[in-house]
Amino acid sequence: MTVPASTIWVINPNTTESMTAAMVDCARAVVAPGTHVVGVTSEIGPASIESHYDEALSVPGVLRAVERGERGGADGYVIACFGDPGLDAAREVASGPVVGIAEAAMRTASYLGRGFSVVTTLGRTMGRAADLAEHYGMQRFCRGIHACEIAVLDLDGDPEARKIVTEACRDAIEADGSDVVVLGCAGMADMCASISADLGVPVVDGVTAATLTAQSLVAMGLRTSTRGEFAAPPPKDYLTG
Amino acid sequence: MTVPASTIWVINPNTTESMTAAMVDCARAVVAPGTHVVGVTSEIGPASIESHYDEALSVPGVLRAVERGERGGADGYVIACFGDPGLDAAREVASGPVVGIAEAAMRTASYLGRGFSVVTTLGRTMGRAADLAEHYGMQRFCRGIHACEIAVLDLDGDPEARKIVTEACRDAIEADGSDVVVLGCAGMADMCASISADLGVPVVDGVTAATLTAQSLVAMGLRTSTRGEFAAPPPKDYLTG
Amino acid sequence: MTVPASTIWVINPNTTESMTAAMVDCARAVVAPGTHVVGVTSEIGPASIESHYDEALSVPGVLRAVERGERGGADGYVIACFGDPGLDAAREVASGPVVGIAEAAMRTASYLGRGFSVVTTLGRTMGRAADLAEHYGMQRFCRGIHACEIAVLDLDGDPEARKIVTEACRDAIEADGSDVVVLGCAGMADMCASISADLGVPVVDGVTAATLTAQSLVAMGLRTSTRGEFAAPPPKDYLTG
Amino acid sequence: MTVPASTIWVINPNTTESMTAAMVDCARAVVAPGTHVVGVTSEIGPASIESHYDEALSVPGVLRAVERGERGGADGYVIACFGDPGLDAAREVASGPVVGIAEAAMRTASYLGRGFSVVTTLGRTMGRAADLAEHYGMQRFCRGIHACEIAVLDLDGDPEARKIVTEACRDAIEADGSDVVVLGCAGMADMCASISADLGVPVVDGVTAATLTAQSLVAMGLRTSTRGEFAAPPPKDYLTG
Amino acid sequence: MTVPASTIWVINPNTTESMTAAMVDCARAVVAPGTHVVGVTSEIGPASIESHYDEALSVPGVLRAVERGERGGADGYVIACFGDPGLDAAREVASGPVVGIAEAAMRTASYLGRGFSVVTTLGRTMGRAADLAEHYGMQRFCRGIHACEIAVLDLDGDPEARKIVTEACRDAIEADGSDVVVLGCAGMADMCASISADLGVPVVDGVTAATLTAQSLVAMGLRTSTRGEFAAPPPKDYLTG
Amino acid sequence: MTVPASTIWVINPNTTESMTAAMVDCARAVVAPGTHVVGVTSEIGPASIESHYDEALSVPGVLRAVERGERGGADGYVIACFGDPGLDAAREVASGPVVGIAEAAMRTASYLGRGFSVVTTLGRTMGRAADLAEHYGMQRFCRGIHACEIAVLDLDGDPEARKIVTEACRDAIEADGSDVVVLGCAGMADMCASISADLGVPVVDGVTAATLTAQSLVAMGLRTSTRGEFAAPPPKDYLTG
Repeated sequence: MTVPASTIWVINPNTTESMTAAMVDCARAVVAPGTHVVGVTSEIGPASIESHYDEALSVPGVLRAVERGERGGADGYVIACFGDPGLDAAREVASGPVVGIAEAAMRTASYLGRGFSVVTTLGRTMGRAADLAEHYGMQRFCRGIHACEIAVLDLDGDPEARKIVTEACRDAIEADGSDVVVLGCAGMADMCASISADLGVPVVDGVTAATLTAQSLVAMGLRTSTRGEFAAPPPKDYLTG
Repeated sequence: MTVPASTIWVINPNTTESMTAAMVDCARAVVAPGTHVVGVTSEIGPASIESHYDEALSVPGVLRAVERGERGGADGYVIACFGDPGLDAAREVASGPVVGIAEAAMRTASYLGRGFSVVTTLGRTMGRAADLAEHYGMQRFCRGIHACEIAVLDLDGDPEARKIVTEACRDAIEADGSDVVVLGCAGMADMCASISADLGVPVVDGVTAATLTAQSLVAMGLRTSTRGEFAAPPPKDYLTG
Repeated sequence: MTVPASTIWVINPNTTESMTAAMVDCARAVVAPGTHVVGVTSEIGPASIESHYDEALSVPGVLRAVERGERGGADGYVIACFGDPGLDAAREVASGPVVGIAEAAMRTASYLGRGFSVVTTLGRTMGRAADLAEHYGMQRFCRGIHACEIAVLDLDGDPEARKIVTEACRDAIEADGSDVVVLGCAGMADMCASISADLGVPVVDGVTAATLTAQSLVAMGLRTSTRGEFAAPPPKDYLTG
Repeated sequence: MTVPASTIWVINPNTTESMTAAMVDCARAVVAPGTHVVGVTSEIGPASIESHYDEALSVPGVLRAVERGERGGADGYVIACFGDPGLDAAREVASGPVVGIAEAAMRTASYLGRGFSVVTTLGRTMGRAADLAEHYGMQRFCRGIHACEIAVLDLDGDPEARKIVTEACRDAIEADGSDVVVLGCAGMADMCASISADLGVPVVDGVTAATLTAQSLVAMGLRTSTRGEFAAPPPKDYLTG
Repeated sequence: MTVPASTIWVINPNTTESMTAAMVDCARAVVAPGTHVVGVTSEIGPASIESHYDEALSVPGVLRAVERGERGGADGYVIACFGDPGLDAAREVASGPVVGIAEAAMRTASYLGRGFSVVTTLGRTMGRAADLAEHYGMQRFCRGIHACEIAVLDLDGDPEARKIVTEACRDAIEADGSDVVVLGCAGMADMCASISADLGVPVVDGVTAATLTAQSLVAMGLRTSTRGEFAAPPPKDYLTG
Repeated sequence: MTVPASTIWVINPNTTESMTAAMVDCARAVVAPGTHVVGVTSEIGPASIESHYDEALSVPGVLRAVERGERGGADGYVIACFGDPGLDAAREVASGPVVGIAEAAMRTASYLGRGFSVVTTLGRTMGRAADLAEHYGMQRFCRGIHACEIAVLDLDGDPEARKIVTEACRDAIEADGSDVVVLGCAGMADMCASISADLGVPVVDGVTAATLTAQSLVAMGLRTSTRGEFAAPPPKDYLTG
């Protein structure tokens, strides 16, 4: 029996192309033969997402990317920012499944132990992560959310970043008594293996977790239900400022 | 002792000016002497908000309105759509308090009985209302969310609308065993008194509830804490598509 | 349009008149023109409320005060002790809205950030505050409840009290990572502004918050629903010991 | 080994002596040899408890009874009204354990199946029962609270009462899909066996459940912790109106 | 880049080989090239699992199968009964990830809409499904659990079974207002596609969902954390009866 | 009136007879005249229970003991391991009530204060205790679960054990701010009185608490409901490996 090839669009909700490239590399390393990963950088919005304001203004770009994907043959989508911006809206307009990296990371971690610790970038984003943990039913597994206070765009440039993130993870599992680490930023994807090796616990990166979740949903022929809330949005007049 | 005059901007997140006018009338009928209500219609986004997609695309307009309010002397803000679009982001950029009509309506209703029923427009928006009830801690008071299946812009034009909404409210309190009705759309604000008279229970409209909440917060000198999550967002490069 | 004048009875459930006077001053400083605040000291019960036993024995006095208010033209009521003694019973007998200072303080704080810390008097009262936070749906906002171990009646007399309370508030927001302080005793009302100035975060006093909530409910014509649980109590024979 | 004799005071919080007599009979039928049950009728307060107002005004009488019990050799106490009035306060003043009939009934029922239905008297008391179910951690077992709309004092006099209560229990377990019935009024204690026989499910009466719980706590030498919240209340001046 | 081939053992906790064969067919239809699915039928325990008693007695067989898998080159495991029997214990002894079909089905469904309905075999198993929904954090997505009252081993033999299950699914989504169906028995796996076609909503089968989840975890190099609770069990003397 | 004599089987789920003897002594010290306590040591399974694996493999022995009790005149059962292994299954096969020591200990503690701390043996068993606290509705009372890191079978042999457990209890109530201690292992039963004396707080041992709970249920004529989930399991073919 042969599962047909599928194409997953990994959408970076910020406008920084180097981040897109790095996360696509991570996703490609784990997908099955026949799964094509397409990286897409948002064309409008903030260069990185570190506030509710940034996140709100990233959503129109995410939705525009999904609309392009619909015309471009995407079978499934990943929204690759840990705030999962625009996820509900994207599900209304996509014909294939849409997976956020926070939801996939947390749910993946929930298979691996009793509790996980999230380690994210700036402390001001911890509230959003807590909201999502609750929204996804993962509050009972999420034992703590911690910040390493490195700005998103410094994760790549700062030579000390990997070390700081690793130590934040070590402190987190100790403080929380948790079994698993969840990396709280798409920009940390390429640190996943080394942190796991250093700490001796499973470390989950949302970009790979979400891409494989999308791959699996496509393989099973599953997509967002259109029975009610997530049916295509009713047509409407829009003013563009 | 004299409480100084204050100015509350009531922002309609959709672009339909007649709705703004109607809701401002309701707010002005209840504010204290010295409270000025300014109605603001969003300049970009959808004509009405009936999906996650509409709501997501209304947020940039809400934030632009708040930014204008900051320059225009607003002491406090109301976001006058029952999905409370952009509330967290608005709190980061406003120097005065920001109140959503869903949060104010639900919390106001929670003073009036053990449980309330929400009656909203289209069934597909019930999920968002449920999310907000939980987010605001009002899940324990919210006994049910019901739709009357009238589109937002038909609330005004349809001569039968008031009757249909009233009957939906009657059915809701009966089915839920609730004490109070919460109207789930800013476009229902002017039906509040008549429904309460017909049903013999308190009926809460979010526009008036939120405006008076903002008035009270301003009177007490209270605004969103800037201690962490809701501090001004860090400056960032933005691409505008 | 003119909102008619209204009268709010602020009931002090303990029998200490100096506390009533101080809290009424705080309430009067924030109400709208046309709102009359009447301070009422309970005529029976304990001099201060610092146990479940004290609280239970304060309730008959609260109810007697409400019954006087019904004859005396009260439009709304505030129960001005952080245990909100007798709130449900008062709602059954009052024809206007009744607001507890704990419920109003917590709900007001919930508009101002993700989480608040309560700072109260004696540690033995923290359990009651936790019960109320849950009962009002505010558990998710309440990040911690802390005691400064000053007896209620020493808040006024002890020259060090304001300093001790302020430091307890500072420690609380640090320990809890919270955005807002809620003062857990009516006797702290007059410390509100200075603590906020010292700490740089919003500080909510329940007496003012509840008085303005009652003012707003009256302005909207809202009172406790009489549809079921809170209808007037059935007449009954009472033995008076 | 011999467990010493113990004395349990069963306090009826209302002033109706015939109810006390009936419930004491039920308790005596199940206690161990050596356990003495003393029935105590409150000397002040309402003839029956059917509102928050009644309940509030019953508490001083309950506390007075406990204070008498302390002088009279009580080893443990039962508060025999399904609203468990004054339970926290009684625990502060009693030197032996204090058990409410609602808490004992619900916790006892939780050993017997996945879920129970509560059947109480008037619908207006259902809210209190729901509060208690939550407070005692029994919300997950409590599948529904139902009223038979018989006034407390008519349970005894009305020849149809037993039949009506039985049918309400039958409807409740059917509607809730529950395994067990909890009788929601001390005045139903003597119906327990016949309802169980008629319905074929366990039926729990709180008076017997609480008396045996108190008996067991005394046998194990356990009483309310005095470590903090439930230590003896601090002495205080009281005004008696 | 090439993801290496992996082997997933799908363990049927009951002793009925025909069920194993049917479920393995379903799993093989969706796995990626390079994923080998090995079906394993338990050698001890009940022929089908329809009570807590059956489930308890199936666990030793599941653990024995995992121990064989450890020697036989399994990279990951699926426990293919909707009660997820022995899951925690299996995680202690397996060196690769272990996934239950209930947990995978529910978490997979949670990507596809706001709420799902579970349709299972006998009503007496609904309690276990509810326990698992809570344990996995899926309670908020699980809107109802329904039984079609077909015994497990009759799912295959009864020509009417598919029709009865389909109608139970239709009734369930209608009653619950849910978006998605979760099939509550491994024996329903081969009905998944036809029910989805008939009802027009996503239908999730746990066997395929769990197999793909195990495949993804293996691809990411993730397994149960050994940091604490799920470390290898301490050696112990065992009596075999 | 005379309550007839009853027989409670206290089943030790591990195979260590000295533990059975010690716990039966504790139970006999508190039961009523006329209650016979029969100690039963499991005939198959692990010598002590310190992992999910141990617990799973202890269940068949527990069920076999209950089946013997049914033939041997048991009126009620206690499962005397803090993981309450096999409790749901035992309820399906027993004709009298079945009580786990974790459930009885936690529910008993909930009558004695606002919160308890559990002190158990090895840290790896804390997760199971947390699961049970939630399952029994006791999460809100359970303020912390702590390990003293003494293996079960060393509780008896190690002369330092009592001291270590006592200090762990002292640290626990301090860290948790709790009122009561729950001993998290049947092997600690005989330390109960001395720890309570040392710490000045109530200390609850599950063996005695469960035995008295079973005694009370039998006295009231209550047993597990057979209305649905806990009816006798359907007959089934079993393979014995």
